[in-house]
Amino acid sequence: MLVDKITDINYGKVRKKIISFMKKELRSSRCDGFVVGLSGGLDSSVVATLASEAARNRLHALILPSSSITPAQHLKDAISLAKKLKIKYNVIDLQNIHSAMLRKMKYKKLAAGNLLARLRMCMLYYYANKNNLLVLGTSDRSELLIGYYTKYGDGAADILPIASLYKVQVRALGQHIGLPTSVLTKKIGPMLWKEHTAEKEMGMPYEELDGILYCIFDLKYTPEKTAKKLGIPLKNVMKIKRMHDESTHKRVMPKICKL
Amino acid sequence: MLVDKITDINYGKVRKKIISFMKKELRSSRCDGFVVGLSGGLDSSVVATLASEAARNRLHALILPSSSITPAQHLKDAISLAKKLKIKYNVIDLQNIHSAMLRKMKYKKLAAGNLLARLRMCMLYYYANKNNLLVLGTSDRSELLIGYYTKYGDGAADILPIASLYKVQVRALGQHIGLPTSVLTKKIGPMLWKEHTAEKEMGMPYEELDGILYCIFDLKYTPEKTAKKLGIPLKNVMKIKRMHDESTHKRVMPKICKL
Repeated sequence: MLVDKITDINYGKVRKKIISFMKKELRSSRCDGFVVGLSGGLDSSVVATLASEAARNRLHALILPSSSITPAQHLKDAISLAKKLKIKYNVIDLQNIHSAMLRKMKYKKLAAGNLLARLRMCMLYYYANKNNLLVLGTSDRSELLIGYYTKYGDGAADILPIASLYKVQVRALGQHIGLPTSVLTKKIGPMLWKEHTAEKEMGMPYEELDGILYCIFDLKYTPEKTAKKLGIPLKNVMKIKRMHDESTHKRVMPKICKL
Repeated sequence: MLVDKITDINYGKVRKKIISFMKKELRSSRCDGFVVGLSGGLDSSVVATLASEAARNRLHALILPSSSITPAQHLKDAISLAKKLKIKYNVIDLQNIHSAMLRKMKYKKLAAGNLLARLRMCMLYYYANKNNLLVLGTSDRSELLIGYYTKYGDGAADILPIASLYKVQVRALGQHIGLPTSVLTKKIGPMLWKEHTAEKEMGMPYEELDGILYCIFDLKYTPEKTAKKLGIPLKNVMKIKRMHDESTHKRVMPKICKL
């Protein structure tokens, strides 16, 4: 299986590299610490755990559920990780703010989901500005490559510690650093509305997505060769390629009119 | 005066270039139009006016005051411009949302100001996502070069039509396209709190700031030569240079940990 090859990296080394990256960025930024949004999901649990090693006592977590949307297990896992890491944390329910904003304009599900991600960013940056902290982003390479995140929402941060790791690698790293089973096995997803999971929305498991991305971006395969290598329909590959191409604007600074 | 040299450009040509840039970006994005946040200030009035020429009937404006902070004249000027341009517009007061979010955490003035700018971005993107629109940024070159804007707030947009123009050039362009005197002569500033003006916060008029930026970035002068040329203290030049250097992180994508 290709996924075995993708995940066959030295996680001890990866862990050390990410920790020293965070230490270096904190020093050069002259900030007093980090803040991370903790969702109870895989990515933010990994980032928070490594950040707690990089900056003991200078890591703050904000846990920002929206009570009508966020699954109870996510909230529970987020709080229990913050306690285990012995880091400062606040729980702030965004439901009333989110609803109040939605009442100002006509409702649309996808836009409302993105709004929730952006409100989380607003809270993280308010807290960061107030306390002179760096905002840690929790995006991984799979999400970044296909634009599976909210522009200026969860995509917005000061530094991105795990952005070079595919989701399947983040999961293996999570295992390596001893995250609890409930975090490692829960369905992955942004949870921007009820039962919002990534695999449902993308129509394929992460193993397949990461296989496609690895073939295209690491092995430089054509779509046809990728489909053949993975034994999947070409249209699956083309879908991911399209998602990549159409999300280019999310990975670059806004375009300037040159004069 | 150096400012006369900086502003001595062909505004007819500039106007055409910006309009064709917006048309081209709209086409290639396959969006259905533009949305712009209209504040009643100079930059957004210029962008909205040119956008109305680029995409007649497909320009939407959101006017997003916070009633306890935004000066009445700004709101009045914003509405009157939207009416004059005959574009769709909504006025949404953000005061209650802003206050509700601030009640969730301890208050700090600068962070609260940045939060207001980010809430405006949230509203613009909610409206853009709902209606498949591009978000027009209104940052000018002076603000961008010294980081005088909120990261992921007013700095967040899909395209930046006037980002190549210094503030003094934007003012001259505003004159050229016939903006009303009240817009052209009002004190410039983000108005993120009461009586928040740029010149007060920066400690120098825009003519001096733009002179410094022009010497450093266009003429490639040293700070010493810049101070001599402008007949100002070296410490003013160094202050602007420092603002530029310390805001580098705002002009690039978040740093990724490479593995």
